[in-house]
Amino acid sequence: MTFEEARALDAADPLAPWRARFALPQGVIYLDGNSLGPLPHAARDTLARTVEREWGERLIRGWNEGWMDAPARVGGKIARLIGAQAHEVTVGDSTSTNLFKLLVAALRRDPARRTVLSEAGNFPTDLHIAEGAVGCVPGAVLKIVARADVAAALGPETAVLLLTHVHYKTAERWDMPALTATAHAAGALTLWDLSHSTGAVQLDLNRAGADLAVGCGYKYLNGGPGAPAFLYVADHLQSALSNALSGWMGHAEPFGFADAYAPAPGMKRWLTGTPAVLGLAALEAGVDLWTEVDQAQVWAKSARLFDILAAAGDALGLECVTPRDPARRGSHISFRHRHAWELTQALIAGGVIGDFRTPDIIRLGLTPLYLRHEDVWRAGEIMEDVIRTDAWRDPAYAVRQAVT
Amino acid sequence: MTFEEARALDAADPLAPWRARFALPQGVIYLDGNSLGPLPHAARDTLARTVEREWGERLIRGWNEGWMDAPARVGGKIARLIGAQAHEVTVGDSTSTNLFKLLVAALRRDPARRTVLSEAGNFPTDLHIAEGAVGCVPGAVLKIVARADVAAALGPETAVLLLTHVHYKTAERWDMPALTATAHAAGALTLWDLSHSTGAVQLDLNRAGADLAVGCGYKYLNGGPGAPAFLYVADHLQSALSNALSGWMGHAEPFGFADAYAPAPGMKRWLTGTPAVLGLAALEAGVDLWTEVDQAQVWAKSARLFDILAAAGDALGLECVTPRDPARRGSHISFRHRHAWELTQALIAGGVIGDFRTPDIIRLGLTPLYLRHEDVWRAGEIMEDVIRTDAWRDPAYAVRQAVT
Repeated sequence: MTFEEARALDAADPLAPWRARFALPQGVIYLDGNSLGPLPHAARDTLARTVEREWGERLIRGWNEGWMDAPARVGGKIARLIGAQAHEVTVGDSTSTNLFKLLVAALRRDPARRTVLSEAGNFPTDLHIAEGAVGCVPGAVLKIVARADVAAALGPETAVLLLTHVHYKTAERWDMPALTATAHAAGALTLWDLSHSTGAVQLDLNRAGADLAVGCGYKYLNGGPGAPAFLYVADHLQSALSNALSGWMGHAEPFGFADAYAPAPGMKRWLTGTPAVLGLAALEAGVDLWTEVDQAQVWAKSARLFDILAAAGDALGLECVTPRDPARRGSHISFRHRHAWELTQALIAGGVIGDFRTPDIIRLGLTPLYLRHEDVWRAGEIMEDVIRTDAWRDPAYAVRQAVT
Repeated sequence: MTFEEARALDAADPLAPWRARFALPQGVIYLDGNSLGPLPHAARDTLARTVEREWGERLIRGWNEGWMDAPARVGGKIARLIGAQAHEVTVGDSTSTNLFKLLVAALRRDPARRTVLSEAGNFPTDLHIAEGAVGCVPGAVLKIVARADVAAALGPETAVLLLTHVHYKTAERWDMPALTATAHAAGALTLWDLSHSTGAVQLDLNRAGADLAVGCGYKYLNGGPGAPAFLYVADHLQSALSNALSGWMGHAEPFGFADAYAPAPGMKRWLTGTPAVLGLAALEAGVDLWTEVDQAQVWAKSARLFDILAAAGDALGLECVTPRDPARRGSHISFRHRHAWELTQALIAGGVIGDFRTPDIIRLGLTPLYLRHEDVWRAGEIMEDVIRTDAWRDPAYAVRQAVT
């Protein structure tokens, strides 16, 4: 593809107007929206209003004027993006904490099933939290197997299959309906980490029969650094599971001030402490953008952006570890290189912000709402420059450590 | 005291200039800063900068430019307010979640000690979370006794004594050094909930020998609605305890991306998910104000404000459930009345925002940084008007449900 062809794709792109909805710094091609999405202009305005008009003027009254409902309200909006019903999703805490809540609940469901099954190389916090969760349920164990062995490792002892739908490093995507069916055939629940999926690929949790899920607010949803995370429990499981982090906001009557805990009905029982209002406000602004977007257009554009960088990588002889088949991947592309760290630094110095992922991966995020074909084409060109000129061998590039 | 005398106290008040640092709505006397502190002007500016300059312009690079250090940095500032060392405090999650982390850790310390001891009528989330925590440690139980029986109920089975230092309803304050010594004599740890203490009364955790503590960011610290909470672990316990919510941010090498969890040294192990940057930014602005304040002046003024409202209550024959002895209370005053709910609504309608606490308590927060003696004097006058005119019997007052 030539630069002119990339520009022609932009001229015909139905998503092109979305770019103006984001603050994007000059001189940067941002291929890291899968790690931290950029600032939506609306989030700036929403936060200013929340701070000035709500906190500043309404003070404590804000709780009755929208804050208390924010977890369910924002959850309901995310539900539309992931193929869930509004009453199946709530928002709060971090992805890690939400994983803990759901894993402990899943492990307690059936005393005969005490194993969390997951894959080696899953995103670290998923495995770390699973380690913590099994420590909280007598007899529970965490079983980690190679990706290829996951389906075969399901058994009568499996309580829950914990998988990240789109792999944080390679972008490989699990077949959610197929794996869920396999897990169900073995009597296990599924818990999907949708951090690299939501706002990236089209999701239909209800149709897939997914039981449980969590996901991140600060990546493709553009909810801001450390945004609250979401949590999904399929309708039919909601009354059977309860929250070990049994805080007052999940109580059936939070203002009854009783000594004994009684879980609220529905998703409210998954709340723990006081909702993080500022984080929720920024996240809601990001999510509101998504509710206007045609996700099929987003996914189609992601595939085109992928092809541009895949071609650039091919021309350089780079090893692409992301599946070529769009149905088997998410919305980033990763190359393996023994000098991946130095190359990532050199790309950043050249204005292309991507991620290094240890030990040898260059990860580039493809976010169709605000990336132009032109941008991605130029990123490929800069990548070519960097590799061909050996600029990356310069040890002066600053150390940089990014967040997934 | 006359109105003129109250004004004279304001004229001589060394804290008077602090009032201008807060956004305070017209026509409101805000006696609810112990539930949600008002907006510091600095927080508005800090948030705008964090959003625009950091998130907007620096994007993912923000993590290396201050965000990643925010939990320890803000924790270090809070440490100065509570008589702890900077490396003994970190910030993140909610008070409830932090209680869970510390309770599970305390229960795991000694297999012979499996009891969490607390008082009936403690703040509900403390008891609810303790219920959840004991469910995560085999053999653990929660023992709830009357306030008067707490010391005597300590025994060889007590792992940890969980108390709220200043009671959310009555403002009664535990004698932290004495209770801690008693608990230690019984071989138990102490876990203090400082939500109604920090920024309210003078604290010296190290001198008291306190083992563990948590506290709220959105009350007297003015950190904003749902602000992150803090967590304290005494230096000598830090390597012995670990975090069941073992997320990647508490890992010794978060970007090593290993499958197995290894806790970070020091307080970092108590982190779980990605830090909530926007919430931390607002909280830091609130905490920064406190680092400039003379806490002895704050406490002395709190006592004067208390006396004004106590006298108003006495004149009305109201039952004050808060101790008259300043050494035995926090920084709010509570009256018992069988029509407390209606009276609280009437006070709000009259411009005095306080809290109802079920079943029969009117709770009024005394926050010397931004309340004048004049304001509190007028609140007393409005309270007198409301009670004497029976305005509160009007059923038209809107239902209102506030947050602790």
